Amino acid sequence: MNLDNLFRAAQEAFLFYKNLPGKEKGAFLDTLADTLEAKRSEIVPLAVKESNLPEGRINGELGRTTGQIRLFANLVKEGSWVEATIDPAMPDRTPLPRADIRRFLTPLGPVVVFGASNFPLAFSTAGGDTISALAAGCPVIYKAHPAHPETSRKVADCIHQAILKCGLPSALFTHVEGGISEGQALVKHPIAKAVAFTGSHLGGMALFDLANQREEPIPVFAEMGSVNPIFCFPRKLEKENEDLAKAFVASLTLGVGQFCTNPGLIFVPEKLAKAFESAIAAELKDIAAAPMLHPGIAQAYYDSIQFLESREELRWVKVADPKHLINGSTALAEIKAVDWLKDKLFQKEVFGAFAMMVVYQSEDELLEIAKHLHGQLTITVWADAEELQNQLFLLNLLEEKCGRLLFKGVPTGVEVGYAMQHGGPFPSTTAPNSTSVGAYAIKRFARPIAFQDMPQELLPDALRDDNPLGIWRMVNGSYTK
Amino acid sequence: MNLDNLFRAAQEAFLFYKNLPGKEKGAFLDTLADTLEAKRSEIVPLAVKESNLPEGRINGELGRTTGQIRLFANLVKEGSWVEATIDPAMPDRTPLPRADIRRFLTPLGPVVVFGASNFPLAFSTAGGDTISALAAGCPVIYKAHPAHPETSRKVADCIHQAILKCGLPSALFTHVEGGISEGQALVKHPIAKAVAFTGSHLGGMALFDLANQREEPIPVFAEMGSVNPIFCFPRKLEKENEDLAKAFVASLTLGVGQFCTNPGLIFVPEKLAKAFESAIAAELKDIAAAPMLHPGIAQAYYDSIQFLESREELRWVKVADPKHLINGSTALAEIKAVDWLKDKLFQKEVFGAFAMMVVYQSEDELLEIAKHLHGQLTITVWADAEELQNQLFLLNLLEEKCGRLLFKGVPTGVEVGYAMQHGGPFPSTTAPNSTSVGAYAIKRFARPIAFQDMPQELLPDALRDDNPLGIWRMVNGSYTK
Repeated sequence: MNLDNLFRAAQEAFLFYKNLPGKEKGAFLDTLADTLEAKRSEIVPLAVKESNLPEGRINGELGRTTGQIRLFANLVKEGSWVEATIDPAMPDRTPLPRADIRRFLTPLGPVVVFGASNFPLAFSTAGGDTISALAAGCPVIYKAHPAHPETSRKVADCIHQAILKCGLPSALFTHVEGGISEGQALVKHPIAKAVAFTGSHLGGMALFDLANQREEPIPVFAEMGSVNPIFCFPRKLEKENEDLAKAFVASLTLGVGQFCTNPGLIFVPEKLAKAFESAIAAELKDIAAAPMLHPGIAQAYYDSIQFLESREELRWVKVADPKHLINGSTALAEIKAVDWLKDKLFQKEVFGAFAMMVVYQSEDELLEIAKHLHGQLTITVWADAEELQNQLFLLNLLEEKCGRLLFKGVPTGVEVGYAMQHGGPFPSTTAPNSTSVGAYAIKRFARPIAFQDMPQELLPDALRDDNPLGIWRMVNGSYTK
Repeated sequence: MNLDNLFRAAQEAFLFYKNLPGKEKGAFLDTLADTLEAKRSEIVPLAVKESNLPEGRINGELGRTTGQIRLFANLVKEGSWVEATIDPAMPDRTPLPRADIRRFLTPLGPVVVFGASNFPLAFSTAGGDTISALAAGCPVIYKAHPAHPETSRKVADCIHQAILKCGLPSALFTHVEGGISEGQALVKHPIAKAVAFTGSHLGGMALFDLANQREEPIPVFAEMGSVNPIFCFPRKLEKENEDLAKAFVASLTLGVGQFCTNPGLIFVPEKLAKAFESAIAAELKDIAAAPMLHPGIAQAYYDSIQFLESREELRWVKVADPKHLINGSTALAEIKAVDWLKDKLFQKEVFGAFAMMVVYQSEDELLEIAKHLHGQLTITVWADAEELQNQLFLLNLLEEKCGRLLFKGVPTGVEVGYAMQHGGPFPSTTAPNSTSVGAYAIKRFARPIAFQDMPQELLPDALRDDNPLGIWRMVNGSYTK
């Protein structure tokens, strides 16, 4: 299909779809969730085949996908997400009367979404980016990830079935296949109003640069991953040595390490490093290498490891074993904090089950680390209550470096809820003021518009005096229904 | 002062200031408003001298400035702006328990603000950008506008007096003077986390490109103006010919046309064009040329006019008179819609009291115009009730092209309130999802962070179970206090 025609159709669909009541948009999303559930037995085997991920995981991921579709369906059916804000007229104000001003969020227009290789369902065709854009009121031009074309086509079919069932314009969703140049052409098209992407730093930055060089620059919401450091404090670590080693290894090796929240960096006090290392090594023994998403990812993983193996600052606790190239074999290296601090290459994400254990000698060193740390999706702090109270300044610094700060458990397993923040300071994302997971993800695809002295009968329902939607609104600065 | 030292001091001030309670931040802003009021008799003459704007206007602008300082003071004292969102733990959830996740907005860090020439007070040293950044919790490195250095220094003194009085770190605000290269150096500094700018398209885009090419790209909130079209419909125009001509000319010539919401484009139906033109011409007769902000702006105005005078598509209703170069003399040209549509140069802003009257023949032509129109801060529609009902599709298109849509009055006079949206699609701004005027302006300088399983005693007050601030929060998806 011709690209201009494709975008023009999307723009036409937009001008219709954006004005549909939230209830109808929500009903469409619910229909889509039902359709995906109904096709589970067709979707799951395709995704398993194309991703090398186990059936249990893919089944879970489909549940996560429909779960987040229903979250957004509920969000737009309820309707308060539009931040309706009303400053009614004050005709008698002196020295000047106040006009009637009403503001809410309006969708941006057609949005380009790129699928992710590591979540063939939850971050792909009907994944979080697509769904939050559709929920906001934006048609989606979806660039399928070449690693799972059949899965993508099948899910795209489900989206079109739901569109048809709800009597909506089919250009609400367009499935595009191709490589890098096809993706670039989508981002460059003048009708595109935003881009969402989950993937590598290189890929994300290429799209970011391209979008900023357009005649009309557009926002790129690129989630480019991070190394998700864990900071271990002595008392906590001493008390829970085995449990924390177990939790760490489970998180590190989950999904063969192919998660954006995979913990690739762990800071350990020197006096406990040996014991913790042993506990980790014991856990690692039982972890078998497993197939990665595709050969390209496995190749990149082993290339990165090979580069690190050439660095003499690292001591290898477990070396990777690239015997069967598609299989990701866990690797762990140790480094002194003083060495780690010297080279920012040691902060680079290695996508897969690799972690660097950084051994620190003092709390001063921890502060240096916090200052030098790049932006992260998550940072985890393992400390007991007293240790936390002694580290308020460090915590203050760590807040500056992440989008989510954890005090228990592990960073993998991103909850889909209202309060989730999945996005952090650069280079973890290009848009730290946004999230790609959770209810707030919808806000990426909308912008504010204010109507001044608009007649009641023309106002969107969200802004009418009688509040027919019954949503939360800010009127004269106070929240009210 | 060395730039590194300056930014390091700002970063240190940030790590302290960001954690102050909203009440203390608000008290500081109130103190600043009081200080500015107390120094009114010193500030106003300086600003009058340096801007060529009349004393009445500058007095009013100081009131606007302190008014918006108090708006932000109230906003942060009240505290709900941080979007506190709480998903409490569900330890018994199956198949997996839910962690406790709490999200709110945290300030970005040190922010670079550029002063605007056309508002020596309200958009300059202690103007909307500076104040919304300080309210959010961000120190400001302020680049003074070279057109009003003495005013800027005087206001900066007031800010430092308020800082001193409240016992805050002096690096909360840094006043920097210089030219383009000094401004660029500020934007490039690695500690800078965002940029706010009001000014020309060229200037805004230069900063935007610079900020995106940094090792860590940062957001640029550049408000670059627009031509703020007015769409006139026949019934309304016929009924109110003189009144609308009067309102238009008053808005066009207010402040010698030096407003970002100045109406530089007006669409008029052919059959009424003559009558409306006469009414406008009658109004224009009484408007004397008046000094513009500085000679450079006057020069740029007449250069633009001269270029347009070379275009044969334009018929001049009133020619500019560059006799006294500093004086801005109103100019008005007429053009057929069919010609206007042919060249996007006719959409370029001419900063000053110039407008283009575009004569349209049909409603189809209006739709073409709406499709071709660039992004605007505002669009105004003058139509009676029946005409509006007949133009729903056009209105739907116009919404896509602006940040504020008016149905009465004129675009100049931007209300500072909760619902105001001052910012629109590119090229009127580089960040259409934000506003530079009104309460929501504070959100530009904050980003979300989520705390997972953070102990109660460490949580920020905004997120503690007992809600000690008494703010509005979203708990489990519902608003509550």
